[in-house]
Amino acid sequence: MANLLVKNIGVLATAKGSSARKGPEQGDVALLKDAWVLCRDGVIAEVGTGTVPAGYEADAEVIDAAGRLVTPGLVDAHTHLIFGGWRQNELGLKLHGKTYLEIQNAGGGIQSTTNATRQATEEELTEKAARALDEMLRFGATTCEAKSGYGLATEHELKALQVIQNLNDRHAMDIVPTFMGAHLVPKEYKDDRAAYIRLVCEEMMPLVAKQGIAKYCDVFCEADTFTVEESRQVLEAGKKYGLIPKIHADEIEAIGGSQLAGEIGAVSAEHLIVCPPEGIASMAKGGVIACLLPATSFNLGATFAPARDMVNAGVPVAMATDFNPGSCPCLNLQFVINLGCLKYKLTPEEVLTAVTLNGAAAIGMADKVGTVEAGKQADLVIWDAPDLDYICYRVGSNLADIVIKKGNIVAKNH
Amino acid sequence: MANLLVKNIGVLATAKGSSARKGPEQGDVALLKDAWVLCRDGVIAEVGTGTVPAGYEADAEVIDAAGRLVTPGLVDAHTHLIFGGWRQNELGLKLHGKTYLEIQNAGGGIQSTTNATRQATEEELTEKAARALDEMLRFGATTCEAKSGYGLATEHELKALQVIQNLNDRHAMDIVPTFMGAHLVPKEYKDDRAAYIRLVCEEMMPLVAKQGIAKYCDVFCEADTFTVEESRQVLEAGKKYGLIPKIHADEIEAIGGSQLAGEIGAVSAEHLIVCPPEGIASMAKGGVIACLLPATSFNLGATFAPARDMVNAGVPVAMATDFNPGSCPCLNLQFVINLGCLKYKLTPEEVLTAVTLNGAAAIGMADKVGTVEAGKQADLVIWDAPDLDYICYRVGSNLADIVIKKGNIVAKNH
Repeated sequence: MANLLVKNIGVLATAKGSSARKGPEQGDVALLKDAWVLCRDGVIAEVGTGTVPAGYEADAEVIDAAGRLVTPGLVDAHTHLIFGGWRQNELGLKLHGKTYLEIQNAGGGIQSTTNATRQATEEELTEKAARALDEMLRFGATTCEAKSGYGLATEHELKALQVIQNLNDRHAMDIVPTFMGAHLVPKEYKDDRAAYIRLVCEEMMPLVAKQGIAKYCDVFCEADTFTVEESRQVLEAGKKYGLIPKIHADEIEAIGGSQLAGEIGAVSAEHLIVCPPEGIASMAKGGVIACLLPATSFNLGATFAPARDMVNAGVPVAMATDFNPGSCPCLNLQFVINLGCLKYKLTPEEVLTAVTLNGAAAIGMADKVGTVEAGKQADLVIWDAPDLDYICYRVGSNLADIVIKKGNIVAKNH
Repeated sequence: MANLLVKNIGVLATAKGSSARKGPEQGDVALLKDAWVLCRDGVIAEVGTGTVPAGYEADAEVIDAAGRLVTPGLVDAHTHLIFGGWRQNELGLKLHGKTYLEIQNAGGGIQSTTNATRQATEEELTEKAARALDEMLRFGATTCEAKSGYGLATEHELKALQVIQNLNDRHAMDIVPTFMGAHLVPKEYKDDRAAYIRLVCEEMMPLVAKQGIAKYCDVFCEADTFTVEESRQVLEAGKKYGLIPKIHADEIEAIGGSQLAGEIGAVSAEHLIVCPPEGIASMAKGGVIACLLPATSFNLGATFAPARDMVNAGVPVAMATDFNPGSCPCLNLQFVINLGCLKYKLTPEEVLTAVTLNGAAAIGMADKVGTVEAGKQADLVIWDAPDLDYICYRVGSNLADIVIKKGNIVAKNH
């Protein structure tokens, strides 16, 4: 049936609009009581409160939300979805007293993920990522970003982006692709970093652009990875090929990545755990979205990004999982919501904005998803929760009950 | 069918024996590769590795574990399962800048849970707790403890314990009941604490004993709650009625609760976030199990109990959820497993012991559950995981696939 009516919504919680919300707007969320949403052909046609107009029910598939919370489908704006293998053995080794160097020398670390990703076929990577996407949907995410960056060789970076395209064709999730050949310098280029950067900019990028399989270009700007100048070089090269800049900045050391984000006009800067005031100022000036990844802080035992300072400075804050097999083997945005309140001390309304509209804005999807309003995609979550506070407060349970993507039920959990 | 065979187990991970494991024993876990488990009439009949003996398959329902991890059913040795209402609004209020006093004056805090628990009927409390138990089973717990302690009046404390008995009769979960009338002094006794303690010891306890509806007596020994001397009084009174002592100790301030635990011969002391060395020594001397509740530390933003010091001192460490509507609205023991590794820095093997055998020992169930060995209840979890490290490392996903209680499949998640 082309029409879908979600009625008897206890609270419909949604940010407003189609651009990133910042400062006081970050928490400016509509909490509509006794609401209903009419969807037509996968798009939201009308949102109302009180009595559903006569005739709407007869002409639609009807879902009774039973007085519960409804939000937009969540947006996970930062994942490293495409990888081979897992790295659970490193946790055990560390806890049994092995040092990072011993683990690396035993074949562990990020290079082991690169090896596994290179060894995996396109089909294997597609199947593995599809299972993760299934689970992300069940937790309430209906749109996500996915990066390449474990191939680190032309063939394998293109393979990863092809996997994302395959998944976009076959999976309910909307997936926005990011090219991240500059994730780290692979071991075969350890003694010639410049040659690897040339490979990224002069061989990989033209092919990525020609195939049209990425929208963004990301770089890991960090001590021991890519310097600020190398990062600038990569992102400027990406721009020439139509790839919009994103940047991993200030995750471990503040070497200037967030300042670069503002200077270069990046759509978003990622992590920002140790972001200094001058980085926040640069992002505010440049209109950069802060894409914060609190589950990574949790897993690393690190501190948490200064989210409140960013909100206060007028930097729009998004939050995402950072799902990856090393620093964050977590794909559950509900846990990120918990951390947003418990660790960043953002309000439930600010957190909702972060995992919906601001996440959408960080991946260029804010005109299509991230809020519940007429004209946007019919992406909704019906929660097993009476209100927005509840999903921030309960930890460890999957509270998403019914997940709707483009007007279709794609997950039913309870 | 009376026989159940779980075959093709990649790794069968289990602590050994029927008493709490301490010191080096805490991590002494068997990791049996290529294993199988034969269950008969709800009890484990035989555990083996390699080829399943001829005839075993023909005579049994067969579950193929497909090379994955199997553990004992988890044991959640500390929950406040029986309560009315939730308290999500307090999170929102706090994040919007309200003080604790303002929240309390607006009718919040633990007293609001007491009000809701008193207002709820036995049937309502039973239904609500049953839904939580369903979910705990799906996350892999097959045995738990449950406390009264939100009624704080004779009628309502007895009602809560009756609810636990109802649930034990109708639900697959084994539930061990604890009387905790001394959870806090209710507002109607604020000016006469001694009168409330007399009520607990001289009116509630005799009725609890007469009805035979509790095994343990617990008390909240904490500044502003019950002093060490009051706690001693309550637990000594409980002993006279055959109730075995447990004690909430050192959660916020170290006022001597852990020392009392050792002196009085408590089976376990709970929380122990700020447990001092002399408390650890007293527990070691008294054979007290440390029942640690890391999800509460997480939710409160508190520090984490000195688990390693306890293990080193020969105190057996158990870990549980502390599920309750105030300080820990989390019923997922898998998250507790994550925290055991990430925050306590216990090894996967030590953590497994904590959430199985040592949890069972803390609630007097170690002769029946907590390990996979012939003669124990057939309580098993088949995990969507290749090994023990994996369930410690992955955060936020429900990795329990098939949960088996007394030889029956009680949850199938994937």
